[in-house]
Amino acid sequence: MPTPLIKLYYKNVMADAIGPRHGITARQFDALAKKTSPLIAMLNEERKAGQTPYRDLPYNEEIPKKVKKLKTKFKGRCENLVVLGIGGSALGIIALQTALKPYMHNIYEKKRTGPRFFVFDNVDPSQFASFLHWIGNKLGKTVFNVISRGGQTAETIAEFMIIRRLLLRKLGRKGYQKRVVITTAFGKKNTLLNIAKKEALDHLRIPDGVGGRFSVLSAVGLFSAAMCGIGIDSLLEGARAMDKKVSRRNFYKNPAAINAAINYHFYNHGKKITAMMPYSYALKDLTGWFKQLWAESLGKARDLDGKTVHIGPTPIKALGATDQHSQVQLYREGPNDKLFTFLQVNSFDEDPRIGAAPRCAPEISFLAGNNLSSLLNNEKKATEYALLQDRRPCLTVLFDKVNEYTVGEFIYLYEVTTSFAGALFKIDPYSQPAVELGKQATFALKGRKGDYKPGLTYQQWAKEIRTRTKVDKKFLV
Amino acid sequence: MPTPLIKLYYKNVMADAIGPRHGITARQFDALAKKTSPLIAMLNEERKAGQTPYRDLPYNEEIPKKVKKLKTKFKGRCENLVVLGIGGSALGIIALQTALKPYMHNIYEKKRTGPRFFVFDNVDPSQFASFLHWIGNKLGKTVFNVISRGGQTAETIAEFMIIRRLLLRKLGRKGYQKRVVITTAFGKKNTLLNIAKKEALDHLRIPDGVGGRFSVLSAVGLFSAAMCGIGIDSLLEGARAMDKKVSRRNFYKNPAAINAAINYHFYNHGKKITAMMPYSYALKDLTGWFKQLWAESLGKARDLDGKTVHIGPTPIKALGATDQHSQVQLYREGPNDKLFTFLQVNSFDEDPRIGAAPRCAPEISFLAGNNLSSLLNNEKKATEYALLQDRRPCLTVLFDKVNEYTVGEFIYLYEVTTSFAGALFKIDPYSQPAVELGKQATFALKGRKGDYKPGLTYQQWAKEIRTRTKVDKKFLV
Repeated sequence: MPTPLIKLYYKNVMADAIGPRHGITARQFDALAKKTSPLIAMLNEERKAGQTPYRDLPYNEEIPKKVKKLKTKFKGRCENLVVLGIGGSALGIIALQTALKPYMHNIYEKKRTGPRFFVFDNVDPSQFASFLHWIGNKLGKTVFNVISRGGQTAETIAEFMIIRRLLLRKLGRKGYQKRVVITTAFGKKNTLLNIAKKEALDHLRIPDGVGGRFSVLSAVGLFSAAMCGIGIDSLLEGARAMDKKVSRRNFYKNPAAINAAINYHFYNHGKKITAMMPYSYALKDLTGWFKQLWAESLGKARDLDGKTVHIGPTPIKALGATDQHSQVQLYREGPNDKLFTFLQVNSFDEDPRIGAAPRCAPEISFLAGNNLSSLLNNEKKATEYALLQDRRPCLTVLFDKVNEYTVGEFIYLYEVTTSFAGALFKIDPYSQPAVELGKQATFALKGRKGDYKPGLTYQQWAKEIRTRTKVDKKFLV
Repeated sequence: MPTPLIKLYYKNVMADAIGPRHGITARQFDALAKKTSPLIAMLNEERKAGQTPYRDLPYNEEIPKKVKKLKTKFKGRCENLVVLGIGGSALGIIALQTALKPYMHNIYEKKRTGPRFFVFDNVDPSQFASFLHWIGNKLGKTVFNVISRGGQTAETIAEFMIIRRLLLRKLGRKGYQKRVVITTAFGKKNTLLNIAKKEALDHLRIPDGVGGRFSVLSAVGLFSAAMCGIGIDSLLEGARAMDKKVSRRNFYKNPAAINAAINYHFYNHGKKITAMMPYSYALKDLTGWFKQLWAESLGKARDLDGKTVHIGPTPIKALGATDQHSQVQLYREGPNDKLFTFLQVNSFDEDPRIGAAPRCAPEISFLAGNNLSSLLNNEKKATEYALLQDRRPCLTVLFDKVNEYTVGEFIYLYEVTTSFAGALFKIDPYSQPAVELGKQATFALKGRKGDYKPGLTYQQWAKEIRTRTKVDKKFLV
């Protein structure tokens, strides 16, 4: 193969591997094919009709161009890149950095390529204070990328208003303007966009209709990646290559359709938890990104007909080999209620060799001379073997290696898998209605004025929320 | 209150808060009290009989003394502390550091108190190679703490054999001896202990009968904590204070008994997932520690009578406010199959204030002037309110503040809660039989000689494992 690739391997979810009680029989698989096939055509149609604009991000030529232009502008002026964003404006960004930059990137001053990199996706006082102390005298060499699709995310705005004040105080208006890049959707009522325009800040656009959790291949993910030296062209190339596969009309050749169908089957057969377990530290945060994609897209109270269904597989993550010593006891002996997806890497760029055992410890000499990758991948094999002995279904996504191209493939594979799963579950995977209530309740508690809904002001509502959540000492122990 | 404290708050799991279909009625709660009360006496008896030696760790005076002596020995010679360990020899250690050291600790050179701190709890080639490049010329100012209870954990031994070779090459035998501390249980066949003795390395003892996941308050957790300036006396004091509470014979006043009973109830009423969600970055990795404690202790195929039960709640973790934008959609609208435990902090040592909104954005001015802690804790309240609206049960552990004392309380609370849960589920919470098969299978694949079991050599078995896990291209897409 000329290019490194990823492949989905699904033998070990089949009845032949784990028996007919827990595995998928050939007949069931064909039934899944029959059910899913029309959805392939449907998704391709929806995409053509412009209803799933995330599908076209890898073909957008304007975004990488704009991103690269901004990168050139900051050349030599950015030693620290700080992203302020949360959820879909953070998880994909973090995933790209963990996958494609060395583990010691921020600490290894001499060998660092690209700026130090930070993401703040919370409003934790201690965490942010610790950062503010450190950044205090480095503001002149720092760029802040403030990301919010809707332009009014409370956490992101809060952090931004702290940084804005700091920059204005220490560097003045011009200094402030030179060090902030806003990434947001464009629209009249967009707070961040209005600030960017009024205050003459650089800004990047998130295309219309691309939801946060589907936005990593837009400016949301690409700007910080490019700034840190990640090859965004290769990332998008990998996504385009995967697009060809996940558009295939033949179910049996379409990895996203098969992946979604398998997940759908197991959810309906008592396995309501889906565990993703990479055997690679680099791929660790792609599981965090996946968790949002899966949970927010598929966790829905109502189906497309408005019927109450309360559907949604619970995604969990583990890391191999680490969590063999933490979660595998439960995975093997606990309820058979999980589908496992391993991520496995065939070849690593670097691969330390295990040293000789001391003479007094011949019992560990069998490890000597092995490379770590061989130990790690044997552990994956051993864990999968053990799970199969207990009839637990296992998928594997095989990576030839971890690089921009395969990470692009993976992201696109799982985005489209999510669309297929949404179609199979007959829910809308692109909405997140339940997030709104908590957001609005926060606004109320923070003293927002006006009406929350007809007949109920924010202030009245805040009182109700406080009553409901007030600590009753009777239940305190 | 003179000392900061933690408290368990359980009103919002009760029927009065979320209705009788999902909540616990007063009658059910009394039934739980009746069922659990005899277990309080039983656990106190077991402890007196020396069957749960982890319970006595906070009273052990020898361990802190030995740890402090070693710390003095390394004074001025340790700029980097590196822990090699996995599972129970890593998760508690990481949790203490995240909770009790500033976020920017490793990066903030000027203000750093104590050595830079790293834990390697995997055998990832890229991750470890990145570290090896960096540490290469810093070995003379680095201390490695190698931790394995059994003394033969493959991952830890593999990393240690890489570091050992490096130290011997670069610093010679004396240099090597000065820079390694072994932490392990003492016993004749213990590989690490034998190496420590033969090679004259400093070593610390893990008391007999203290399992990995219950060992954080032994030398396992205390050495690195003390080296980094964490107050281990206060940590142990907090644990002792909690010991008083969790030994109370009155169920209604015993937070561990109540916590376990509530978890047990919900597991038996269709809520097989338990989500822990701290609203504090500092407490984030205590959830990772909890995940192992809960999963390995309670995930069991057989009960104490040998009956096949396949029991085990699945612990998952989220972080507030971050995961409101990732998991809360599922938590609210998906299946009502989860019990939530929030961790909430009342007071933070530092608390940045949100700056004024630009004039062009009056719609966000309601945030201005607030401290981040007020926003964060209102978000917790808002999320809890939203979950209660959907009749999802919510516990909260309230922290006056995060410090050594309250973290010690929390650790001890959850360890004893786990013992109670084990007793309620009628399983052995201190074993991990299922971890062994994967370990042995790894040994087989790595070419170990001799018999795995009568009639099957490791080599024959390795062949079987390879056949079972061999990639069949028919299922590759």
